[in-house]
Amino acid sequence: MASSLLSTPSQTLAPAPAPAGLRGRAPAQVHLSRGCPASRRSRALRVRASVAIEKETPESEPPPTFLREDGQGAGSGSVRERFEAMIRRVQGEVCAALEEADGSGARFVEDVWSRPGGGGGISRVLEDGRVFEKAGVNVSVVYGVMPPDAYRAAKGEAGKNGAAEAQKAGPVPFFAAGISSVLHPKNPFAPTLHFNYRYFETDAPKDAPGAPRQWWFGGGTDLTPSYIIEEDVKHFHSVQKQACDKFDPSFHPRFKKWCDDYFYIKHRNERRGLGGIFFDDLNDYDQEMLLNFATECADSVLPAYIPIIERRKDTPFTEEHKAWQQLRRGRYVEFNLVYDRGTTFGLKTGGRIESILVSLPLTARWQYDHKPEEGTEEWKLLDACINPKDWI
Amino acid sequence: MASSLLSTPSQTLAPAPAPAGLRGRAPAQVHLSRGCPASRRSRALRVRASVAIEKETPESEPPPTFLREDGQGAGSGSVRERFEAMIRRVQGEVCAALEEADGSGARFVEDVWSRPGGGGGISRVLEDGRVFEKAGVNVSVVYGVMPPDAYRAAKGEAGKNGAAEAQKAGPVPFFAAGISSVLHPKNPFAPTLHFNYRYFETDAPKDAPGAPRQWWFGGGTDLTPSYIIEEDVKHFHSVQKQACDKFDPSFHPRFKKWCDDYFYIKHRNERRGLGGIFFDDLNDYDQEMLLNFATECADSVLPAYIPIIERRKDTPFTEEHKAWQQLRRGRYVEFNLVYDRGTTFGLKTGGRIESILVSLPLTARWQYDHKPEEGTEEWKLLDACINPKDWI
Repeated sequence: MASSLLSTPSQTLAPAPAPAGLRGRAPAQVHLSRGCPASRRSRALRVRASVAIEKETPESEPPPTFLREDGQGAGSGSVRERFEAMIRRVQGEVCAALEEADGSGARFVEDVWSRPGGGGGISRVLEDGRVFEKAGVNVSVVYGVMPPDAYRAAKGEAGKNGAAEAQKAGPVPFFAAGISSVLHPKNPFAPTLHFNYRYFETDAPKDAPGAPRQWWFGGGTDLTPSYIIEEDVKHFHSVQKQACDKFDPSFHPRFKKWCDDYFYIKHRNERRGLGGIFFDDLNDYDQEMLLNFATECADSVLPAYIPIIERRKDTPFTEEHKAWQQLRRGRYVEFNLVYDRGTTFGLKTGGRIESILVSLPLTARWQYDHKPEEGTEEWKLLDACINPKDWI
Repeated sequence: MASSLLSTPSQTLAPAPAPAGLRGRAPAQVHLSRGCPASRRSRALRVRASVAIEKETPESEPPPTFLREDGQGAGSGSVRERFEAMIRRVQGEVCAALEEADGSGARFVEDVWSRPGGGGGISRVLEDGRVFEKAGVNVSVVYGVMPPDAYRAAKGEAGKNGAAEAQKAGPVPFFAAGISSVLHPKNPFAPTLHFNYRYFETDAPKDAPGAPRQWWFGGGTDLTPSYIIEEDVKHFHSVQKQACDKFDPSFHPRFKKWCDDYFYIKHRNERRGLGGIFFDDLNDYDQEMLLNFATECADSVLPAYIPIIERRKDTPFTEEHKAWQQLRRGRYVEFNLVYDRGTTFGLKTGGRIESILVSLPLTARWQYDHKPEEGTEEWKLLDACINPKDWI
């Protein structure tokens, strides 16, 4: 359901062009289903629903805001406004830092789009740089409409008795904004990074003014190395813990576990990488506090990652190291195409395919029945993906 | 449902080791759902069911037969026996021809497994040869048990009034056998080939002796080039048509269309390749005739493919040609992991992962927003994947 829009790391929040068969019709009717994550969730519901999404149009320049002028837009001080400002600031800062780390003069290419009724997105991609094989940093803002059953799902436990009213109330407008990024370096000793932070709101239905308005935050940052360099992994997890500990002592243990559970490649019995933090449907804290928490997490991306990249971008490596990295990239593809809710949701609903699949590596490899020899560095990585560890 | 076992091109029919969490328990309880294909089907049902599958054990040598000694095994002259003999003969012939075409002395590596109660499989893989990047040719035989609702689905239109009896009758044993193969050459002008032929039977339930026994055939052969060489594509389709025309004039147009519909990458609005033939749930003809038809199709693989490989294996190519081939291999991965019913079924049910994913290429590539220039050879291929053509 609509919260899937925001519950998914790779989701750009931009189900942009309708599938070919639907092009020309707007709003497109698309189907989405909310998968049950492996992790513990407050609302493990599975619903099917239609979400109405307008067709997007390319823009030559990013507008000052993608928000509608509806009282919650520019100058309103709303959470929507501040969240959009935050993700756009972070997008700019992350891209600038990555270009500097790449050091080749390679620049992010930008695609901007908007929708007539409000919302839009900015995709930035740097490909085949000196340090980065592929780096995508996307933001998007979506205004959509969710049907009553999706609204009930969004309301979760609190809405048990609200089914009849919600049904009566009809479709519920929603707002979603997020930043999503995957960074694949070339050097096999430099890890892949993924982060995604998102904010979601439902409007009160017009003809059910008493129905509660829902909101929640989701997101996470996780590291996927091909080789374990303890100093790097510890540094990464420490920065995540510091960000969490500023807000609630329960956050880090809970969100670290959630991350290990979420990025699970079931058919391999392996995690995609060495984890980090992941949370979803977070609304049982003060809204200002959670906005600050999401901001702190997003602002922790560069201090968590850039020092590692600086240390590893020029590490000498062999063809064997590269081939192992490529095999792990294959696992990344398997996770994203088979399990990641944002990707699978985006593919099914006619999202902007190029923005969604920018998470896939430039190159990947599948070798029949490859098993690293016990005790090797490759085996140690695999073992840590099978048996998640406490790194700090 | 159980027929998914056989309705899927890449499915090895060998849901071998149970997922990690289930290891040690046998028979494992696995869930499978039958997706509705894009193509027209006689029974477009979607059911969820449990299938009981025993844990497999590795074998050092292929046994003379994987069939049980139950009166339909060795020496019985049953369709099961003849189908198993056919797919094992074809596996041998295809592997020998590919080794010869590869010409490097590279040999197929073989993995054999069996199950205590009957059934098993042989996976053969050749990797990094001179001509072939990756070639997998698998056969398998599965004895399983399907629950009543799956049995009703298998019975289709004929079983409308049989629901109550089937429910009463309890789980229905089934038999499945198939050959499945994907061949990825190195040269960008030499096309990828996939073929899969399968036979399925349900036993009459023991305590419902009047209930009909069901059987059907499925399969197909399809070509996925990175560049269109008309001579090759015409040759390939001509051989498919010849095989079909020996049996029924309706077969080729129907199965050609079915193939174009099945290998559809919805989120790209592209087919995976240039098609061939595909059929499923085929039982509305004489059983002997269909056994002969499946045999004819399987025997047509080498005459359809080897002449193309011989012509193209040494064609000079540039890095740009190779990069385009790698992008198309990325599309192959997208189709197999997102849409192919055999692959997705196998991944969900704890099938032998290495046998299932041997269909993935050794290497693949994803480039952001790559669009071939209109009129180029790359554009022509893409156009033919978007708008399927009649090649003969």
